[in-house]
Amino acid sequence: MKIIVLKFGGSSVGTVERIKKIANIVVSYRKKGYKPIVISSAMSGTTNDLIKKSAAISNNFNSAEYDVLVSAGEQISCSLIAGRLNHLGYKSQSWMGWQIPILTEGMYKYSRIIKIYKKKIIDSLRSGEIPIIAGFQGVNSNNRITTLGRGGSDASAIMCAKFFNAQKCIIYTDVEGVYTTDPNTLRNAKKIKVISYEEMLEMASLGAKVMQPTSIQDARLNRIDIEVKSSFVKKGGTKITKRKNLISNKIIRGISFTKNDAKVTLIGVKDKPGIAAAVFKPLSNNAINVDMVVQNISANGKETDLTFTIKSDDLIKTQRLIKKNKKIIFRELIVDKNVSKVSIIGVGMIATPGVSYRMFHALAKKNINILVISTSEIKISVLVNKKNISKAILALHKEFKLDK
Amino acid sequence: MKIIVLKFGGSSVGTVERIKKIANIVVSYRKKGYKPIVISSAMSGTTNDLIKKSAAISNNFNSAEYDVLVSAGEQISCSLIAGRLNHLGYKSQSWMGWQIPILTEGMYKYSRIIKIYKKKIIDSLRSGEIPIIAGFQGVNSNNRITTLGRGGSDASAIMCAKFFNAQKCIIYTDVEGVYTTDPNTLRNAKKIKVISYEEMLEMASLGAKVMQPTSIQDARLNRIDIEVKSSFVKKGGTKITKRKNLISNKIIRGISFTKNDAKVTLIGVKDKPGIAAAVFKPLSNNAINVDMVVQNISANGKETDLTFTIKSDDLIKTQRLIKKNKKIIFRELIVDKNVSKVSIIGVGMIATPGVSYRMFHALAKKNINILVISTSEIKISVLVNKKNISKAILALHKEFKLDK
Repeated sequence: MKIIVLKFGGSSVGTVERIKKIANIVVSYRKKGYKPIVISSAMSGTTNDLIKKSAAISNNFNSAEYDVLVSAGEQISCSLIAGRLNHLGYKSQSWMGWQIPILTEGMYKYSRIIKIYKKKIIDSLRSGEIPIIAGFQGVNSNNRITTLGRGGSDASAIMCAKFFNAQKCIIYTDVEGVYTTDPNTLRNAKKIKVISYEEMLEMASLGAKVMQPTSIQDARLNRIDIEVKSSFVKKGGTKITKRKNLISNKIIRGISFTKNDAKVTLIGVKDKPGIAAAVFKPLSNNAINVDMVVQNISANGKETDLTFTIKSDDLIKTQRLIKKNKKIIFRELIVDKNVSKVSIIGVGMIATPGVSYRMFHALAKKNINILVISTSEIKISVLVNKKNISKAILALHKEFKLDK
Repeated sequence: MKIIVLKFGGSSVGTVERIKKIANIVVSYRKKGYKPIVISSAMSGTTNDLIKKSAAISNNFNSAEYDVLVSAGEQISCSLIAGRLNHLGYKSQSWMGWQIPILTEGMYKYSRIIKIYKKKIIDSLRSGEIPIIAGFQGVNSNNRITTLGRGGSDASAIMCAKFFNAQKCIIYTDVEGVYTTDPNTLRNAKKIKVISYEEMLEMASLGAKVMQPTSIQDARLNRIDIEVKSSFVKKGGTKITKRKNLISNKIIRGISFTKNDAKVTLIGVKDKPGIAAAVFKPLSNNAINVDMVVQNISANGKETDLTFTIKSDDLIKTQRLIKKNKKIIFRELIVDKNVSKVSIIGVGMIATPGVSYRMFHALAKKNINILVISTSEIKISVLVNKKNISKAILALHKEFKLDK
């Protein structure tokens, strides 16, 4: 069977009119000879409304019941889609997680799919039906409803593509695809036609809101090719695939950036083994994510300067934790909320020397001071003053010919 | 176990604030030593909103998907109630029809409960949990969600009371109980403390909106004592029980009436055997309910006058069906939309002669003309001009001392 998985996000099914539109999209694949499996999120707004209700009921709403509550959202959207396809003359049926079943394990609110039982859906496809599967939800071994956490409908789509051995997996959303950088910041940003899982992972975790990193990782592990495209306009989207499928000779695929980072510097820290651990352990215990870290070599071997970045929201908590940390001695604590991280991302840099030099040089030419540098195999990130962010993105976009 | 079934209707769980209130009601029974089983409807408004969406998707929305859609409403209310009880420190869990399971048969939208599997709920009760069961829904033998039709949550409550052998079944609603007549029409109407199933059936089918007749019938067949009371005010309600539990010596329990009836009279119908059937068959085929029927004896044995009542909404259709009915011959068709049926109801009339005389006399004293009369074992109904309705109710209420 030529199975295709079509996933529709919340804004794609946000109104009854949108549901009619996406039913037509589903039919178009059916007419091309595909057997579509549809995965749907809740109608946009529904989930937030339900979460608001739970918060009004309790400031510590039971997790298991939270999952029962919010999963009602997908039940609504899926039955409406199935109802529309029936209206158009196609056999179609909604499927909740427990009906298939989609078996999950782990905590409520953050469960993971471990198995999708295939028989009922395969039977449904064979009989000519179009199954509409509730995204974001499953059922655990206790027969209780579970949900998959943020971006969970993407995970549902990827796992369905895997278990049903789909030829394609298309993630319909409200953006046209992945861009070389945020089009709202740089008007010249271009849609990326093909991107590797690894690049997409870096783009996603750095702020491109197209797909959740965990779902991209699931796709990578299971070698599922994904296309991300808009359900609002009829245009090609962005294909996410394995590295060796990339034919483009671009060194850099895209530029991502953050807007809510803060820099913390400890001046004159008493240097001894384990000092970094002593600083970061209380932060980690308090769920504060430390991103870039730079430790200067101390001249006299006795003192060092330690710089790191965190989310701005965590700054006050971080300052408090550092000040009451008895295990470290330092002279001064300096913080800077006006910083941004700009990253260039591309698997091409592995095989191309001098990429970092080109990056630093391009920024230097524009008089942009680099505060911190951090690199990985396919990414170079620099911390700059927030006021330089647009200038930096423009310079790098040009330097690496992303506007071409 | 001292099990009590507490059913809350839509307005009782209409807002988050209301859900907090009814959680307190549930706790109060727990503190009295009961093991409560809660049955909840959807929050008022939710179901109508979902039905509106389905109508916008299709003017002939698939029934199976309709059940999936609307049952999401109870999923929301039940998880919120369970979440609130957890918040208050009580173990509580929501239960959808498929989780128990509550097995149904029959058509989608109009299914009937045929079995409730007891083990999981009994285990839950034994472990000290308060189960919150979704009313109105079940699952059929195909593992598809079903709903029970109008008033289905009442049916869920009655069947739970039966299967779990509950000591009590309380239906919480937005009225304080059953009244001797509609308090909006007669300010002097009194709350009835105890009423028999049979009387309640007549009251319900004649317009008292407290409970659906099918659920009362279920309760009667299974000998489940019900109390109907308000979740908004702390007052005793109305107990619905078997006849022999009635201790009140009232002959008449209440007065019900209709507001949207129409009277149809066929003058000079050719009288022959089967003429009534010939008139009513096409009406029945078109789902038009004929209520009161009177056929005058024809003087010459050749012609007769046939009068019957229907809902006003069906009048145009009825006229059309009669006019094109080739099997009947008549001289004239007279219709009257300004009629109302007033009924006195009470098991006491069985053992008390002269009740009908007292009724007719009380109306005659007020110059109220009786158009049609129909009687059953525990009910006497008369058709009067709509303009006389309040006067008639007041006269009968006094005559049978219902205001005492």
